[in-house]
Order: sequence, then C-alpha cells, then structure tokens
Amino acid sequence: MKELLISLDVSAKTALYEQIYEYIREEIMGGRLSKGERLPSARLLAANLQVSRSTIDAAYAQLVSEGYLMAKRGSGYYVCDISSLYDFTENRRNRDKYGTKKPQNAVSAYSPQSRRTDSSGRERPEISFLPGQTDELWFPYNAWRKSAKEALLDLEARHSLLQAGDPKGEYSLRRAIAAYLHHARGVQCEPEQMIIGAGNEYLLQILGQIIGRRLRAAMESPAYLQAYYTFRSIGYEVEAVPMDENGMCVEAVTDVSLVYVMPSHQFPLGLVMPLKRRLELLAWAAAGEGRYIIEDDHDSEFRYKGRPIPSLQGMDREGKVIYLGTFSNSIMPSIRISYMVLPPELLAAYHEKCGFYASTVSKIQQMTVCRFIEDGCFERHLNKMRGIYKAKHDCLLQLLKKKKWVRRIYGDYAGLHVAAELNCSCTEEDIIEKAASCGLLVQGMSGCYLAGGKKPDAGPVLLLGFGNLTKEQICAGAAILEKCIET
Amino acid sequence: MKELLISLDVSAKTALYEQIYEYIREEIMGGRLSKGERLPSARLLAANLQVSRSTIDAAYAQLVSEGYLMAKRGSGYYVCDISSLYDFTENRRNRDKYGTKKPQNAVSAYSPQSRRTDSSGRERPEISFLPGQTDELWFPYNAWRKSAKEALLDLEARHSLLQAGDPKGEYSLRRAIAAYLHHARGVQCEPEQMIIGAGNEYLLQILGQIIGRRLRAAMESPAYLQAYYTFRSIGYEVEAVPMDENGMCVEAVTDVSLVYVMPSHQFPLGLVMPLKRRLELLAWAAAGEGRYIIEDDHDSEFRYKGRPIPSLQGMDREGKVIYLGTFSNSIMPSIRISYMVLPPELLAAYHEKCGFYASTVSKIQQMTVCRFIEDGCFERHLNKMRGIYKAKHDCLLQLLKKKKWVRRIYGDYAGLHVAAELNCSCTEEDIIEKAASCGLLVQGMSGCYLAGGKKPDAGPVLLLGFGNLTKEQICAGAAILEKCIET
Repeated sequence: MKELLISLDVSAKTALYEQIYEYIREEIMGGRLSKGERLPSARLLAANLQVSRSTIDAAYAQLVSEGYLMAKRGSGYYVCDISSLYDFTENRRNRDKYGTKKPQNAVSAYSPQSRRTDSSGRERPEISFLPGQTDELWFPYNAWRKSAKEALLDLEARHSLLQAGDPKGEYSLRRAIAAYLHHARGVQCEPEQMIIGAGNEYLLQILGQIIGRRLRAAMESPAYLQAYYTFRSIGYEVEAVPMDENGMCVEAVTDVSLVYVMPSHQFPLGLVMPLKRRLELLAWAAAGEGRYIIEDDHDSEFRYKGRPIPSLQGMDREGKVIYLGTFSNSIMPSIRISYMVLPPELLAAYHEKCGFYASTVSKIQQMTVCRFIEDGCFERHLNKMRGIYKAKHDCLLQLLKKKKWVRRIYGDYAGLHVAAELNCSCTEEDIIEKAASCGLLVQGMSGCYLAGGKKPDAGPVLLLGFGNLTKEQICAGAAILEKCIET
Repeated sequence: MKELLISLDVSAKTALYEQIYEYIREEIMGGRLSKGERLPSARLLAANLQVSRSTIDAAYAQLVSEGYLMAKRGSGYYVCDISSLYDFTENRRNRDKYGTKKPQNAVSAYSPQSRRTDSSGRERPEISFLPGQTDELWFPYNAWRKSAKEALLDLEARHSLLQAGDPKGEYSLRRAIAAYLHHARGVQCEPEQMIIGAGNEYLLQILGQIIGRRLRAAMESPAYLQAYYTFRSIGYEVEAVPMDENGMCVEAVTDVSLVYVMPSHQFPLGLVMPLKRRLELLAWAAAGEGRYIIEDDHDSEFRYKGRPIPSLQGMDREGKVIYLGTFSNSIMPSIRISYMVLPPELLAAYHEKCGFYASTVSKIQQMTVCRFIEDGCFERHLNKMRGIYKAKHDCLLQLLKKKKWVRRIYGDYAGLHVAAELNCSCTEEDIIEKAASCGLLVQGMSGCYLAGGKKPDAGPVLLLGFGNLTKEQICAGAAILEKCIET
C-alpha cells in the first residue's frame, strides 16, 4: 500500500474531492499506481490530508464508478486493470498523454452497424435511437475472450465439456448469479431456487407449464411486449392495468392470478415503483391462494442517480415473487442467458412438472459467464459501463431539455433509453416515418400499449435509446429529429 | 498428386481392396502422403494396378469412413489431417510403429466420469450402459477450440458479437445445416424454412404454439419419452400407437392431427421404417386437413451397415412433414442446438405467431458450429466417429451374440445403443438394481413405454449404450451383467 502525497489547493475552484479524484486517476493512468495495488483506507487518507471522510468517500466512489478502482468488501480499494479502459469524454483535458488505449474496434465515430445501403444502392449513415441496444465500442473483448478460452480449457480438463449439464443450469453459475443478485439487488435466494434458461421468453413459457396453462395475467400498459406476446402465445388472457405516476394501479387489478411488473425501472416509462405501492402489490398476492408476482428486473444494473432500488423479491416474506433477470443488457443481447428465481412452492412444481427438460443454454456459454463473474470482470464491466451510459444519458438529456419541442421527459437517470413527450402538431407515425427517410430510426410509445389498454391523450412520445450511440451520433440524431418535427 | 506404387499379392489371404487400403493408410500414417494431398482417381488407380474399379472404390470408402481420406465432390480424394486420429482397434498389427498420436485426453482405460464415490466414501469404478452418451475420448478438441476462437474473432471483427441475432438462427448456420441435410439425409429445404432452437423440447414447445395448443398426438410406444413429456406438459393428449416389426402401425392411428415418429432409427427399438410403411404414413397425413408428421431424425448420422436411409421429409410432396434434428449426438449433448424444418404452411404460421421470439441459442455458439461445419471438421468428425462407434458396436454385439442369456438383439448396426432381450427368470428391475450395486448402470425398456401403452410379454429388455465406453469397459460391463443375470 502506497502513501498518497496529494497537495490540495483549498483556494481552487475545483472541489477537494475532485482534486483527489484527479490525482489518483492520473497516478493510475500514468502507471504509478498499478493494477491490484491497494489504496489507503478512506479513514487514513482523510486523516493524512486533513479533509473530511466524506470527501475521500466521494472521490473513491467516483473512481469506482468509472472503473479505476474496485472495492472489496471489508478489505478496501484496489486499482483495476485499465488496459482496455474507455475514453468517452473526449473533452477531458490532455487525456492522450496518459496513453489510454483505444478500444480494439474504435474504427470511426460511427459504429459500423450505423451504415447501410439505401434503396438506390448508396451507402448512407444511419443512426438508431431504437431501445434495447448495448454499447459495442467499450465491451471488454479481451476479458470476454479470456473467460471463454479458460472456460473451454477447464471443461476439457475436467472431462466435462461433452457431458449433458444440469437441467437447471450449471451449479457454479447459479451460485455466482445468486451472490451477485444478493449483493447488488437484495435478492434473497439459494442457487437451488434458480433456473437458467435461454432468454426471458423461454423462462415464461416454462413458468406457464408450472403455474398452469389457462390463466389470466395482469400487465402494466404500456409494457414490455415480448412478455405480453409470450403470455398470449401460451394461451393466457392478459388484462391491461392502467398506471399512474407510481406505476401499476394495484387496486385496478381484478380477477387474475398472475401480475407481471417491472418495479425497479418500468419499460417503457422508466417509472420506479415506490415502497407503498410495492407493499400494496405484495398484500394483493398474499390475499389469495395461487397468486404470484413476476418481477422482471431487466436493466436495473444501470442507474445514474440516487441509490439503487432493491428488488421486490427481497421484500417478499410469503413466497409470492418470481424474480426474472437477464444478461442481455448487462453483457450482450446475443448471449441468450436469463435466470429465474422461484419461490419454494413453485420450485417443487418445477421439479415435478418440468424437471425433465434439459437445460437450454450450452455448458460452454454458462461457464464462460461464470468465469466472467467470478474473476470480477462482470462487476468491473458494469461499473465502467455505468459511467459510459451515464455520459451518454447526460448528453442526450441536456440536448432534449433545451428543445422547445420536448414537453416532458420520462424515465431518465436509469436504463438505456429515455422517453420524450413531444410538443408538436404532427403524429407519432409521421415523425417515425419522416425520421426513417432521413436515416434515423426511432420508436413510438404507441406501439407499447397492450391490445385493449387505454392510451393517454398526450402528444407523440418517442423512446430514445442511447446505448450504442456515440456522443456525436446522439447530437446528429437529435438534429435530424428536430428537422423532422419542425418541418 | 502422387503415383502410388502398390505391389499387390494376389495369392495372399488378404483381399485386394484391403491390401490397397493398408498400403495407403501406412503411407498416410508414416507421413509419406501428407495432409491435403490429392490421391489418384479411382479409375486411374484401377488401371495402374490392373484391378477392378470397385476394388479401389471399396478401399477409398474404407479410408474415408475411418477419417484418413476426405472426398470432395467432383474433385477427388484428399488426405485428411490425422494429427488427432484415433487408435481404437488396438489389436491392429504393429499400429505403434506409425506413431499414431494418443488423443489429448486419453488418460486411462476408464474415462474419468466412470469413477465415483460410493456411499462409504470409497472410490470405485463405474460403467454406464445408459443410452444417450457420446464418446469424449476422440472428440476433436483442437478443431473445436479453433472453430470457437475463429468464430469469436470473426464476430468481433464484423462488429456483430453483441448485436441480437436472427430470431430463426444465424442465416449462415441454417445454410450450412440445410446443405448438410440435403447431402447426408436427402432433406429438401431452404434455409428460410429452418428454425434453430435450444434443443428438441424447446422446438416442440414452439411447434405447439404454431399448430395449436389442444391437440391429440400419436406416438410410437416404446418411445423417446422427452418428447412425450413435452407434449403432456404443453397440454397435448398423447395416444400410444402399437408397433410391429415395421414400426408404427399406421392403421391403428385414430383421431389425431399429429404423429411423432423416428422412421430412420426408432428410439429405443432401433427399427427402420420400410418404404411401404412410410408411404402409408404420408398418405394418412395427406388424407386430412391439418394433419402433420414430426420426423425426429435423432441419431441417423451413425449407421454401420448398408446404405443410409434417406429422410421421410425428402419423400414428402404435400408439405406434411416437420423435420427435427439435433447436434446432441453428432457434436455433444451439452451444446443445446437443434433444428426444425417447417413445411411452407407452418412456416407462415410460425412467422405470424412465434416470429417475435428471440433466438434461444447464443450467436457465438451458432457461429462456432457454423465454422465447424464449413471447415469440413463436422464431416471428418462424423466419419471418424462412425468408425469408432462401429468398432464399439461390433465389440458389444459379438459379446452379446455368444451369451446364452441373450435371446434377441434389436436395433443393431446403427446409433449409440443396442437393445437386448434377455433369456432369464429375473425381472428387469432386479437386474437393474443388482447391476447398480455392482457399479454398472443399465436402463430397461419398460421405462420407455407411454402411459397407457401396452407392454409385450417378452422377458426383460435392456438398452445398452456404448457411445462413451472403451472396449475394455464394454467387456467388463458385459461380465458384470452376466454375473447379475446368472446369480
């Protein structure tokens, strides 16, 4: 552990925590603090520098959130491997002198998927504000490749590569996810309660076979339509429940046995369900036999303001909540690994009715993710991406806030998209069509309402995903949008 | 292309084709014919050696089936990469002098999965005759690792690793499988008709959503129970149809709209459905609206005698056959990739009802398999494994044929198990239990009958899988079995 000799300028405009943050960051970038090195405790450093403990805490928290430091519980702060660290905020002074590596595939300001050929055969840039896209520029390709290689060699060494795996998913992966969910989302579960499956929709299909085939389910409207379509396709009747500013109106839920919600960050509105409403929902479930709540916690990893919101599952004392999560946002959409935590009663039914199904995820992929988590890559990746997505989010939000044609913004400070209610005379369809003809893809909120669900009388609302856009693309996209709305 | 100077001994006991085969094999093993080298055409070599063309054809065919040569259509025969070639038949004279490499994980006569700890904590050898196991000693680990690595790097280079894939599966994989199925199984399909999914059971669940949820299906009994359980779990009524020596008795099929069969190698009986019965089945489907046949072609890759049997799908002119295949036997059980070929009418229904589902197989795994096929590794692997499994099959069959306690053998000359009807006074359960207590795992045929399906009055019938056993294990297993039956 090194002593840090930081000379603070109390008369400077820069806040003290920012000076400390800058100093440590430069030490790390310059290689004077190297990977794995332990930093002095916040208490000790505060005493040495004669500043308050909270100043140090703020500096360390910033460094952790940007991926420079890693906090190990009960042990302190350690320097991360920064070899593939990002450089999103290009206006940071003198960044290059630290020799930050360009990521391996930073080939141009436009990511390659953003070029396509139009009907006349000419290539033209295209910007996609469609939600559900993750950043591909800063993905830790090296760490992923290493996890994949090590998982494969390890399976070979244990003579386990070819052998059929556990139907519920590999135990070590379930253990790693359970530990992560406990610490990051307050989920209370044993690995035994968890089923790994090839995507949320698959797990919902299995759930349908466990709970029963001819049910009525309730969903928020607007909602995540993949879940709605799945319920319809397995034969459920689905009731669209209206929402207020606190999320699903629980008192409007009628004769259903299953409620599907996204309490931590509703898609597409981005609402967070407050405690009171959560308790109402749990009380509804407890009041009737065979009632269950599906908590889809799809992108809770990315929260840019305030404390993360613990899961509903962690508050459930009656075994009524089925927790559903995915690696689509936190690792990659193409990986097809989701996990479902079943309450004890449903776990028994799973074993009885669906225990015969083989796992739907290949063992190699499961063990790659397991390594990625256990080696700390997943946590570092999330911390890094939180910083990157926050910068993108802030950039988009600042742009939108200045625009006269934006009436209201929903669901900001979390996730990978915001919703903007427009102040204009054109229809949603018109704007989407005009934008598409200018090479800009956007999605309207109208498309997210359930059949039979009431739409509000508000103006057009657009979902603006920023996950895989650069700052330049966000600005260019907003400019195109403005042109489409104002003309 | 080298000239081959083979001196044949016409007076020798060894057949001419065998002398030619031996000569070329020695040239390859000794490195005098090297990887990629082209051999003289059969016609030319026949002329040079003054033997009949069919003698050369037989020698070449043997070399291809054992993985020494590779046939390229319209181009000729080429020497394979033999660096990881097997050495199963250890009684072949002087094999070692050719310096055959041991496979990378040939650590002992018993594979590691065959040791486990008994209740007293002692480790004891265990032999598993359970069906559904594939050889793990001769798997081409190097080629697989190379395919996995190249697929990952290629996806990164194309900026496509993270992007959500095609819901039906990656097009290039579907194209590669369609080409393979056409050439190896006579399946007539376009890649557009194919859906890639995470296992047969998943694809059957999707099929249930396409065709309809409340159907009556017919299955052979005994049958592959995973499919039966899946049908039951998605709400189908299942009718058990009796079988005769030609497979399912089509005239006994009553009021159903779906028939599930394994015409090329029925599990567990191993029957091959003859042409007449196949035509009856197709006629049944054509006679009623909404009737379909599911052809599960699960292990047709491994046939040790006679010509391979083309698929039922290839004979279907009415769009009535749904073809189902898997890589579980041909690559590895843990990979979880199956494929379903839909007739045009059902393809349209799939797009309408299930097109919204994301793929259930990760893009990396799909592209790994795609490379494995396109680079020719899959075909070489199958050719090699066919030789290895045939040797195991022959070994088991010869043993069983000598035993007085074996009354009849079913389903030989194909797949990864045979069924043996026993000539003894004990019950199936007794034998299975006794064997287990001696460290031998076997499965009885009784467990494969559908609920409500009639069981014949024959003696005990055991399914004896040999896929992951060495010759020593097969002999040791048969000896244990004998002891259990005779005492």
